[in-house]
Amino acid sequence: VTAEVRGFRFAGVAAGIKQKGGLDVGLMAAGRPCPAAAVFTRNRVAAAPVALSRAALRRSRGLARAVVVNSGNANALTGPAGAADARRMASAGAEALAAEPRHLLVASTGVIGVRLPVERVERGIADASRALRPDGFDDFATAILTTDRAVKIAERTVAGARLAGCTKGAGMIAPNMATTLTFVATDAAGPATSPAALARSLSRACAHSFNAMTVDGDTSTNDMLLVMASRAGPAVGAAALAEALGDLLDDLARQLMRGGEGVHHVVTVEVRGARSERVARAVAERIARSPLVKTAIAGADPNWGRILAAAGNAGVALDPSRLRLDLDEVALVRGGVAVDEPERESRARAVMQRPEYTIAVDLGQGRAAARHLACDLSHDYVTINADYRT
Amino acid sequence: VTAEVRGFRFAGVAAGIKQKGGLDVGLMAAGRPCPAAAVFTRNRVAAAPVALSRAALRRSRGLARAVVVNSGNANALTGPAGAADARRMASAGAEALAAEPRHLLVASTGVIGVRLPVERVERGIADASRALRPDGFDDFATAILTTDRAVKIAERTVAGARLAGCTKGAGMIAPNMATTLTFVATDAAGPATSPAALARSLSRACAHSFNAMTVDGDTSTNDMLLVMASRAGPAVGAAALAEALGDLLDDLARQLMRGGEGVHHVVTVEVRGARSERVARAVAERIARSPLVKTAIAGADPNWGRILAAAGNAGVALDPSRLRLDLDEVALVRGGVAVDEPERESRARAVMQRPEYTIAVDLGQGRAAARHLACDLSHDYVTINADYRT
Repeated sequence: VTAEVRGFRFAGVAAGIKQKGGLDVGLMAAGRPCPAAAVFTRNRVAAAPVALSRAALRRSRGLARAVVVNSGNANALTGPAGAADARRMASAGAEALAAEPRHLLVASTGVIGVRLPVERVERGIADASRALRPDGFDDFATAILTTDRAVKIAERTVAGARLAGCTKGAGMIAPNMATTLTFVATDAAGPATSPAALARSLSRACAHSFNAMTVDGDTSTNDMLLVMASRAGPAVGAAALAEALGDLLDDLARQLMRGGEGVHHVVTVEVRGARSERVARAVAERIARSPLVKTAIAGADPNWGRILAAAGNAGVALDPSRLRLDLDEVALVRGGVAVDEPERESRARAVMQRPEYTIAVDLGQGRAAARHLACDLSHDYVTINADYRT
Repeated sequence: VTAEVRGFRFAGVAAGIKQKGGLDVGLMAAGRPCPAAAVFTRNRVAAAPVALSRAALRRSRGLARAVVVNSGNANALTGPAGAADARRMASAGAEALAAEPRHLLVASTGVIGVRLPVERVERGIADASRALRPDGFDDFATAILTTDRAVKIAERTVAGARLAGCTKGAGMIAPNMATTLTFVATDAAGPATSPAALARSLSRACAHSFNAMTVDGDTSTNDMLLVMASRAGPAVGAAALAEALGDLLDDLARQLMRGGEGVHHVVTVEVRGARSERVARAVAERIARSPLVKTAIAGADPNWGRILAAAGNAGVALDPSRLRLDLDEVALVRGGVAVDEPERESRARAVMQRPEYTIAVDLGQGRAAARHLACDLSHDYVTINADYRT
């Protein structure tokens, strides 16, 4: 059971929204409006709950009392009726908690383009408010799941303060941002938990976790990552809090990746020796997104030409004759050409059988580095996605 | 048999470069240096023959006598030794034809990162020069193939002038440019066939054909599209020549797509009602590249939410409430929400069984339009690519 986070209560209830049943309405509530920071999808076809929550945080200047979440229906591409449904969810939450509607955030995940069964959701929110418990985090984390095979939770303690986070998302995981709902509660206090400071820490932590991973390069209409700070615990320095938050988000991002649709290998693409971090990031992401690299990962085929060709497609200048490539401890390329070692292929193939390994590319042009999480493009991915809705 | 193109002779011979045997050295030669224009890969890890041909065309100011091509080995990521091998190919061609080396272009395709068996290639070039024939185009078109299941040839006649083109490429097909070798010979004469005019026509024709198609979003190290004009036939107006060239390249691009790795559906993504052509192109390409759209195409699943979500990821402003979506004759979305018609799903599913159909998206913001060719992401694609080299 996830340990309590002072100042928060959580719940997850079954409201009959998911066709297959199970918990599908979650509620995470603080005792009073408290600092909150969020990152939302950059998809221009953003769902109604994203539009509502973005506007609410702006109006309240970064204060929130609670977030209500439903799974089973994304309330996306539902037009003005969907916007009204999202407002009804916020009102139901505000009423149940005796809070102001502008302090209620809303998130939804599930099928796109179908009207939300909003009466059921409203009843679920009322039920959830009665079920709120300090130790209800696991129920909340379960209620946000859709096709996920397991609940994804991470906890950290820093200077006596607690952080608890959960995430969901099985496919459609890409940067900017990973198609997922993620919620973090912390009881940390002090200047580092002002709305503005919290937003800065979140943005930094995101760049190295959720925005540096690719399952398939698509980004959903509903993504949201929310951090709320009840300030009911001890004060924590800004650097320490940011580090703990980054560490927790990296943990959740890796759990998400491991649980990704049809994922059998989680591969860290490390690009070093770059002229700038921007260049390193561009190359790492391009390699991680290449379908040919991803199918090579699926087949455990050490096709280093594809990896370097993907690097060449990143849109940044590079000198092929300076490239170096390693798979974990196996050197494959030096000076842009294959290392002359007869066991090279079989040793590289053995590395690629591992569930997790590192593709390291050195550009030989500077000192900057960046990482991007990648995975395989497998038959399971095609099977799961070719007929998702039936 | 492909009809002759005055002023050209062609050959394809077996030189023992492909492991599985067959024609693997091709030669396309004009009687004298003639105007030539080419588009090369934008991959920064460009192969040695690309670097050589690009430099040769620059030095000769757009004149070429012939192109020598080998399949079975890409001579890519082969370092300085690979550059020397490419020069040896040009020298062998020049010697066989009694031409200047700077008038010889070189292209290679096949395995990456392995030294070319250059003596064999040299012998193949000498053999090919002896086998040159006016009606040898089909042999030439066969010699450039790698994993292609069939030869890809298109012919056009415009104002009495002839164009013959061939292409190769099975996977790795993406814009900028489709990973492929493409060669076009024409006997058209007149101002429209000056090197500069030819380059302009080629660039325009490319934008609507080879650079507007995506199989998997990767771009190879070796791409090259070459047009040579012998000027041995009648003069043709610039507009007529450009149109014929564009039409021929579109034909070849569709053949390439139909023959793509694991491709069962060739889908035209048409975006209309855009504020600008740039916006229309960005949205069409984003939809065509989305792995979730591509798996939905594979499963014949009319998951319109994914298509509009992909549009939302194109990085351009759009108003979800104005979106319209049709699959051929079936209206799926009006005003950003699903059309209320009970047979909608089953009719859309029937359209998606067709080998070729159109996904039409109207952004409702202007009058510009663009198209992009897409295909399915199928199990076959994964099978073919997961262990390409074994």
